[in-house]
Amino acid sequence: MPLNSNAQIEITAFRWVPEFAQGVVRDLRARWALEEAGLDYRVRLLDQERPPEYLLEQPFDQVPCFTDGQVKIFETGAIVQYIGEQSEVLLPRDPQGKYRAIQWTYAALNSVEPAILNLLLIDIFYAGEEWAKLRRPGAADFARLKLKRVSDWLGDKQWLEGDRFTIGDLVMTTVLRFLRHTDLVAQFPNLDAFVKRGEARPAFQRALADQLAVYKQFEPEGEAA
Amino acid sequence: MPLNSNAQIEITAFRWVPEFAQGVVRDLRARWALEEAGLDYRVRLLDQERPPEYLLEQPFDQVPCFTDGQVKIFETGAIVQYIGEQSEVLLPRDPQGKYRAIQWTYAALNSVEPAILNLLLIDIFYAGEEWAKLRRPGAADFARLKLKRVSDWLGDKQWLEGDRFTIGDLVMTTVLRFLRHTDLVAQFPNLDAFVKRGEARPAFQRALADQLAVYKQFEPEGEAA
Repeated sequence: MPLNSNAQIEITAFRWVPEFAQGVVRDLRARWALEEAGLDYRVRLLDQERPPEYLLEQPFDQVPCFTDGQVKIFETGAIVQYIGEQSEVLLPRDPQGKYRAIQWTYAALNSVEPAILNLLLIDIFYAGEEWAKLRRPGAADFARLKLKRVSDWLGDKQWLEGDRFTIGDLVMTTVLRFLRHTDLVAQFPNLDAFVKRGEARPAFQRALADQLAVYKQFEPEGEAA
Repeated sequence: MPLNSNAQIEITAFRWVPEFAQGVVRDLRARWALEEAGLDYRVRLLDQERPPEYLLEQPFDQVPCFTDGQVKIFETGAIVQYIGEQSEVLLPRDPQGKYRAIQWTYAALNSVEPAILNLLLIDIFYAGEEWAKLRRPGAADFARLKLKRVSDWLGDKQWLEGDRFTIGDLVMTTVLRFLRHTDLVAQFPNLDAFVKRGEARPAFQRALADQLAVYKQFEPEGEAA
């Protein structure tokens, strides 16, 4: 069980987030990668109101940050890649296999996530605004096109580059989960199965359970479901 | 002069793009990194209408793709990082220096670019639409917040991690250049100077000149300025 309060590796995470964000906050990516790699880690919890000095660690005021005593970094893409370098489970060692995995990590974060988060923001944060109502159909079409691109590429492969799960699949799965409030992923059966395969991995299950356990522990009064 | 029709390294680029895109199409990142690293490359030119089979190389139908005979990859983040691994000029060798640079590459592409491209799309592609008019002020505020985060981090440093130029600075510079149609970057004098320092590098100048020379050569009739 990689959660270990004496671990060398530390990540930051939130003590609590509202329900719509539970299970998709980005420390999940780091937790999942650490579980896959079998690396012990501890968690430094932050309130939603971060202290101003947190910007010196994370200039965009987000979670997670990562340190293992050797490096201190932020951005989940970089964190997951660094963890991948510690473990062949997540990142092949041959140059082509390694860089195909890294390429999909960037693709998930730059070619897919922006369209998906745009739709999530319209649906969650801006739902009442006039521009959001007008823009929603176009934003959904754009997100659907991105899903189609990934679905067409995936075909009947198990993972993005074949039989082997990598950091690219890990990050892509977490990106596609941002659409869990819609049926968009379900419109692409092979993508839907891809996400479910990722979520079924024991490492993902442990990571998710550990993230949610914190929120349950620090749930504000009156927020219980 | 890294452009060399016999080079082992090949990237894809467009034969021609409309003026608003000239100088910011993403093959510029690969060209710039290759110039910094002193690696010869050749360019395979594509029409704006890509053949359907290009999706087998680049699932999102974009440029550039990269190959050097050893790896075949897409996504500029991955390409620039791979080039960085071939040359200490762009990517430090110590784990902390290396991963701080990689972290900024991801940050540029995931924490900054989406807000900036969102504004660019509103201004260029959707300018006439009602939702775009309503959303523009909020989208500009969001882009400005991202710029402030980078500006606050940068402070009076020369590059994002100090005195040494890395792939993170290279990609961040190209991301900030997407705002060249606005005065947003100029509102942050240290960011403005950062972009100008990047653009003043001889490797950038060569990369830009070589990208623009292609468009000039293949300019459709009636498109001349």
